[in-house]
Formats: sequence, structure tokens, C-alpha cells
Amino acid sequence: MNSKMIRYIIGYILKLEAGFLVLPLFVSFYFKESMLLHKSYLYTIIFLIISGFALSKKIPKNQKIYAKEGLIIVSLSWIFLSFFGAMPFVFSGYIPSFIDAYFETMSGFTTTGASILTNVEALPNSLLFWRSFTHLVGGMGVLVLALAILPKSNHQSLHLMKAEVPGPTFGKFVAKMSYNSRILYIIYLIMTFVLTVILFFEGMPIFDAVLHAFGTAGTGGFGIKNTSIAYYNSPVIEYTIGVGMLMFSLNFNLYYILLLGNIKQFFRSEEMRWFLAIVFGAVFLICLNIHSMYESIIPMIRDVFFTVSSIVSTTGYSTADFDKWPLFSKIILLFLMFMGGCAGSTAGGLKVSRVVILMKSSIREFKKLGNINRIVSLKMEEKPVTKDLMESIASYLIVYIGIFVIILLIVSTSLPDLASAFSSVAATFNNIGPGFEIVGPTQNYSSLTNLNKIALSFSMLLGRLEIFPVLILFSPKIYKR
Amino acid sequence: MNSKMIRYIIGYILKLEAGFLVLPLFVSFYFKESMLLHKSYLYTIIFLIISGFALSKKIPKNQKIYAKEGLIIVSLSWIFLSFFGAMPFVFSGYIPSFIDAYFETMSGFTTTGASILTNVEALPNSLLFWRSFTHLVGGMGVLVLALAILPKSNHQSLHLMKAEVPGPTFGKFVAKMSYNSRILYIIYLIMTFVLTVILFFEGMPIFDAVLHAFGTAGTGGFGIKNTSIAYYNSPVIEYTIGVGMLMFSLNFNLYYILLLGNIKQFFRSEEMRWFLAIVFGAVFLICLNIHSMYESIIPMIRDVFFTVSSIVSTTGYSTADFDKWPLFSKIILLFLMFMGGCAGSTAGGLKVSRVVILMKSSIREFKKLGNINRIVSLKMEEKPVTKDLMESIASYLIVYIGIFVIILLIVSTSLPDLASAFSSVAATFNNIGPGFEIVGPTQNYSSLTNLNKIALSFSMLLGRLEIFPVLILFSPKIYKR
Repeated sequence: MNSKMIRYIIGYILKLEAGFLVLPLFVSFYFKESMLLHKSYLYTIIFLIISGFALSKKIPKNQKIYAKEGLIIVSLSWIFLSFFGAMPFVFSGYIPSFIDAYFETMSGFTTTGASILTNVEALPNSLLFWRSFTHLVGGMGVLVLALAILPKSNHQSLHLMKAEVPGPTFGKFVAKMSYNSRILYIIYLIMTFVLTVILFFEGMPIFDAVLHAFGTAGTGGFGIKNTSIAYYNSPVIEYTIGVGMLMFSLNFNLYYILLLGNIKQFFRSEEMRWFLAIVFGAVFLICLNIHSMYESIIPMIRDVFFTVSSIVSTTGYSTADFDKWPLFSKIILLFLMFMGGCAGSTAGGLKVSRVVILMKSSIREFKKLGNINRIVSLKMEEKPVTKDLMESIASYLIVYIGIFVIILLIVSTSLPDLASAFSSVAATFNNIGPGFEIVGPTQNYSSLTNLNKIALSFSMLLGRLEIFPVLILFSPKIYKR
Repeated sequence: MNSKMIRYIIGYILKLEAGFLVLPLFVSFYFKESMLLHKSYLYTIIFLIISGFALSKKIPKNQKIYAKEGLIIVSLSWIFLSFFGAMPFVFSGYIPSFIDAYFETMSGFTTTGASILTNVEALPNSLLFWRSFTHLVGGMGVLVLALAILPKSNHQSLHLMKAEVPGPTFGKFVAKMSYNSRILYIIYLIMTFVLTVILFFEGMPIFDAVLHAFGTAGTGGFGIKNTSIAYYNSPVIEYTIGVGMLMFSLNFNLYYILLLGNIKQFFRSEEMRWFLAIVFGAVFLICLNIHSMYESIIPMIRDVFFTVSSIVSTTGYSTADFDKWPLFSKIILLFLMFMGGCAGSTAGGLKVSRVVILMKSSIREFKKLGNINRIVSLKMEEKPVTKDLMESIASYLIVYIGIFVIILLIVSTSLPDLASAFSSVAATFNNIGPGFEIVGPTQNYSSLTNLNKIALSFSMLLGRLEIFPVLILFSPKIYKR
């Protein structure tokens, strides 16, 4: 194992984070915040620079890394990013407990948006900025960013990309695309910028617009008001963010295709069409189920569309208290939580393509029943699903269930009811944020025990990196010389 | 498709059920019950004989059946058995609603043990007998019984056996054994008889002993007292039934092996060893979790052992109200509900062997992480797990989850909370009986809507027959000429 290269890249990532923290420092200066806050950022930056340089003093001679190293680099980077990223909260005293601050920062980077803050409006602007900025970085991935910035991206970078960009890959265009992290990042930033401008012109203060654009782009969901998006009480803002969350849940390669002018291919994307069909199907079913709770249809559709978009994109912004909806609607939301967005997007969950392939494989089993010897082919994106892909999706599902049960058992030791426990794991493992009952949309994660906060921080990381990069850290083999 | 043969065998099964109903008729005579009851059985028997002879008037010339016909025969037989089996409850007026009676009978045959009766003690003895007798028949399977009785079991009977005996098959001895339904049934009946005698000598009235032996043997769980087994308040009876439920959750081929004197091979069964390890692990963990609820350790172990045995064997007898246990214990029970007993037993659930193979495959994925190119073999019962077997287990899991979600959505339309809805589906789909909250061990299924009772009756059937035999009835192909 090339541990020198692992150390080197992590060191580089820490220096990058030092650069990130300059932004909230400026925000802090701009809003003339307290000296304590300035110092909090400064000290963290200094720690990061020292650690970064200590790790990446000299470029290793052997720069070859394989899949294994790729996984380790990605998961360790995320763990350290959250570790240092939590410091400003602790130093400034706004989140005195380190475990709480770590939970909050991990929730930011993994774009979960689960918060331990009971009164988010008490935070100074610079901390709010830093909190939302972690969504922007975590959404597309920090190593993808590093690769985009680094002068010469070589062939090996594929291992880092693969470990950080979620979901299985299909289709012809992916092979050509997946190296080009720079284009992906530029599309991502432009879309975020456009969203900011739209929100600003719809009447959001510029600071709020920037932060909500970060939260939407990363499908993160940290609010800056205690009542989240409901605060603005503006249909047009809700629809903008609602559509925005769906857009950032699509595979970014599709936007690249659109950029190349290939509109036909864009609309041929099977995963996108399934995604939209499921989203609108869910909106329809929930409307049918809750129509008696609303006096007229327009505000109902507004609430349901926003909630469905927020949950399926695994963002977690809220306008309506969906914990009060009837059980049928909640189970649809739970299904959307587990499905999540498309592969290659900033959304979490199992990913649409995986769920669709699993559904298709169920239907195939059903079709086979009529004629045992019949060969029923399984296609996705107009291509046959290979046995290897099917196997990797099935084993992902199996490992996913196994890890889910383990985390559920841990959190159940100190949670009172099944709905809270189940949904807290579902909401963190799928990077959504709010769940039901005591972790519902009007509640937060502050009442949990430290053990549960640590377990759920891991749950978020496991979900964001799709399990294996984190799991490899528990393999004793990698610590042997 | 050989629909003549399908009709013929179903006709035979109905005549068999007419024979079964002679038993409660005798019980009814013996206890000098009302004329109405005598008539209820007699009319049902007449209906069955007429229908039976109408369907199986003449032996079809072409007696060849394939896997497809096997699946259809098994599922239709079970549907009709429950249809006619429900009649005595309706005719006698003790369960006036046909849907309720159908739910109760399906619950009996599928050995679920979920009841819609609020006061079971109000039933006359003959109906109690019939109710428990369906457990005995459903436990080992009615077609297995038919094959055991039929003079010449030919090669084709394998298709019927395969569709009715649950779980995947492994090991050398199975190939030799699986044809021999007669020996299986004899072992089954002898074990039931021995259990009856033991319970009788432990102080249970003979009638109660017989019925509880039926319920234990079929891992069904219909009680004849409102407080189930707690009524007898006898540690020795609880331990007897507790051990009995575990014994009937083991693969019956193991007892055949034991009968052949091959004690070594008996103890080498990997599935059995996993099963026992999981059972005692669960007892241990639950004891740790609930010890503060008990004043001393002996009654706690008694309650926990009985509950764990009852749940994992998917029987559903109760002594303690486990719905009052803390969440951690409940989640362990939920895990046991989904796992169930061993393949080739009378227990329901996913089956131990499937769960163990899924766990092993998770661990293999983990091991592979350390070295991507390494080939890690997967073994079960000392033999490598073939790709085909792995694939069939994975697709079973996928279809299982899909069906589970569909039933959950249906029942959620009229149930108030997640725990009730989720556990009612889990408890019927895995053929257990009691769940949590409004379907908890001190509650019953009477308050559910008719739609939910029908959906959960199907859930029981899907679980007992392991999905595919029932699913094939929904395939339009089989109705084409």
C-alpha cells in the first residue's frame, strides 16, 4: 500500500480546507463580528496549514495509487475535514460540545443537513456561512474539487472519482466524461450561481440567497431560519428551490450533454425519466391521501411538491410538518428517502438507477415464473445490465441492509420508539436530515445521546461515500506493513 | 399447461379436507355441542365432497406436470382450503363475517396464528380443535401430506414438494430425502404425539395438550385461552413449549438423519448451529436490555427464552407482553421475525440459511475491499455456494422487499402508526402472528378494516409459500389457452 501517497493527498486536502475557511473569516470581517470569531477561524486555519504541510512535506516518488488507496484517501479526507471543520464552532463557543460540532460538520459535508442546533438563528452570519458552505463542497465532493484544481489530472484520479461520486455508471458518455472533473465542477458552480441570482430577484436577501443556493446545490438542507424555508412564506421561492433540488438530483453528466447541444440524448436518459415519473407519482398519491387536511388545492400542491422534492433529493428543507401527515404519505416519503436521487448527482440514498434495476429484476423474476426456461433480458439506459453490475447492486443492497440494522440496533439503545429510531437512521444514512417523531421536521438531533450522535455521524459518512470507502478502514489488512 | 391435472389434484385436496373436517365433527359429538355446530361441519363436508368430485371426476390421461403447474396447484389448493375451511366458523355464527373467518382460517393453515377473535374462550371446543388442526396440516404442508398418502409418489411430485417446503436446499442428504414425504410426515406426527404426552404429564388437560401440540408443531400459535400460554402459569410447560418450538424450527431432514443413527452429521449441520447461536445470542442481549424490569433473574430468563423461541420459530405464543419491552429488544425481535427458522421446517420468515448466506456475502464484500482481485469463496454446509444459488437468494430478497413495501402501502391507508403497520406486515408475511402496538401480543387483528384483513391474508399466504407460487396466479400468461 502506498501510504506516503495517502498522507500526501490528505495533506493537500487539509490545505484546501484552510483555503475554504478564509471565506467565513471574510464574512466575519464584513459583518464586523466579534474578535473571538475571527480568532476561531484563524486558529483553525493555522492548525490546518501546519497539519497539511506536515503530511505533504515532499512529493512521494511513487505516485501510483490503486482502488484500495482511493477508498482510504476519500474516507480519511472526509473524516479529517469534519474534524477540523468542527473547530470554529467549538472555539467560538457556539457549539461547545465537540461531538455536537463534529455531528453538525459531518452533517454539512455529507449534505445531510441534520442539525443539533435548537436555535439556528442565534448563530452569527459567518458560522451560518461556513455551515452552508460545507454543503457546497460536500455535494460534488472535495476530491473531485481537488482533481479539478490540480494542474495535471492523470489516469489514477479515476480511483478517487469513483470512490466519491455516488451510484453505478451506465451508458456511453460516462466513459468519456468521468475523468473531466473540472467541467463537472464548473457546471455545478454556474448552476449554483444562477440559483442564487434567481432567489435574490425573488426577494430573498442576498446573504440568505447565497446560503440557500449552497444548501440546494449540495442537496444539503441546513436552514438559516428556525422555520427553514417556511420563513419566507413565498410560493415562488418554494417552487424555485423545489425545482432546484430536483435539478441537482439529476446526473451531472446530463448537463454536460446538454451543454454539447445533445438535447435528444438528454431526454433519452432512462434514469431521469424514472426519477421524474416517481416524483410526480408520489406527489399525486400524497395529494390524494392528505387532501382533507387542506381547504384548497393550490397550497396543498405547493406543500406536497416541495416536501417530495426535498425528501427525494435528500435535501431536507421543510415547509410543511410532514410528520403530521397520515401514515400512507409517510411511507411514501420513507420510500423516497431510501431511493434518493440519480447516480452522479449530489443527492444521497440508494440512487434511482439502483432502485429501478432492482424493480426490473423483481419483474423479471415474475415474468420467468410463467415460463421457467425463458430468458428475460434486463435493460437500463438502452443497454443490457451485465451480470457483474447486477451482482454489485445486489451486494450493495445486502451490505446496505446489514449496516442499517447495526446502526439501528446502536441508536435503539437510547431512543424511545421505532419511528424515531428507524427514521433517524434512514434520514442520516440516506443524507436527508429530518425524519419522523423526535427527529421530525420541526425537531432536531440535539436530544440524542453522544453515542447516538457518533453513530449517526458515521451513518451519514457511510451513506455519502456509499459504504465501502468507510468500511475499508475497519479492515485489519490495511494496517499491516 | 396441464389444467386438467391441476383441477384433478385440487379436487383431491378438497376431498382430503372433507376428511379433516370429520375430526372436529367427532369432537363436537364428543362434547355434546349444539346441533347447529354438527350441521356446520356436515354442510361444509358435503360442499367439499361435491366440489372435490366435480373437479376430479376422472383421472386425466396426461398426468405430466411441470414446475409451473406445481406452483399453481399449491397456491390454489391453499386458497381453496382456507375458503372451505372458513365455512364452519360462518355457518355456526361464531365468526359471522366471511372475511374474518377467511383471515382466521388462512392464519391457521399458513401457521401464522394471527387472530381476529377478541375472546377466544367463547369458541366451542370443536371449533378450537379445527382452528388448531389447521396449524398441524399447514405446518408440514397439505400437498406433502397428499403425496404421503397417495399410493405411488412419482417423480413429478418433486414439483409439488418444492413449491410447498420452504427455504433453499443444501447438502448431500437432501437429494436422497426430498422425495420421501411419507417419512417426513411420520416423524412430524410422532414428534407432535410425544409433545402432547409430555404436556399432558406436566399437568395440561388432554384437550389443551393436543391443541397446543398442534400449534407448536406447526409453529402456528393459535392459543385457546385469552392469555395464551401465560394462562397455565407453569415454568415447566413454558420451557417444554419453548424447546418444542425450536425443535420444529429445525430442518426435518435432520431428524431423519438422527433416525438413521448419524448423530455426527446431525451436529455438523451449519444452519442448525447458526440458528441456535442466534437464538441464545438474542436471549442474552434482551436479558441485558430488560433486566431492570425484573426483580430476579429466573423469571426473566423464562420470559425471554419463551418469547425469543416463539418469535424466531414464527409461532407467536406469548407469555410476556414484549410490546412493553424497550426498543432495543423490540428491534432484536423484529430481526428474528424476519429471519425465522431453518429451511425445511414448519417455521416461516426468510429462513436462517438465507440470512446466513446474505451475512456471509456481506462479509465477503468486506474482505474483498482489502484486496480487490482476491477471490473469497462462500461456503454453506461445507459446500461452496454456487452463483445460481446466490443469485436466487438475492432475487428472493429483492422480490421479498418489493412485496413487503406494496403490502405496507396498502395497510398504511388505514392504520395509524408506523410500528403497527410495519409489524402487522412483518408478523403476517413471516407467519408469526402478533406484532407491536395495535397488533401487539395482548391485542388482535379484529380492529382492522376488511381491506387490510384481505391484504394481510394474502401476506400470510405469500409468506408461507415463499411468494412465487402465489405470484404466478397474477401472471396473465397462465390464463391464455
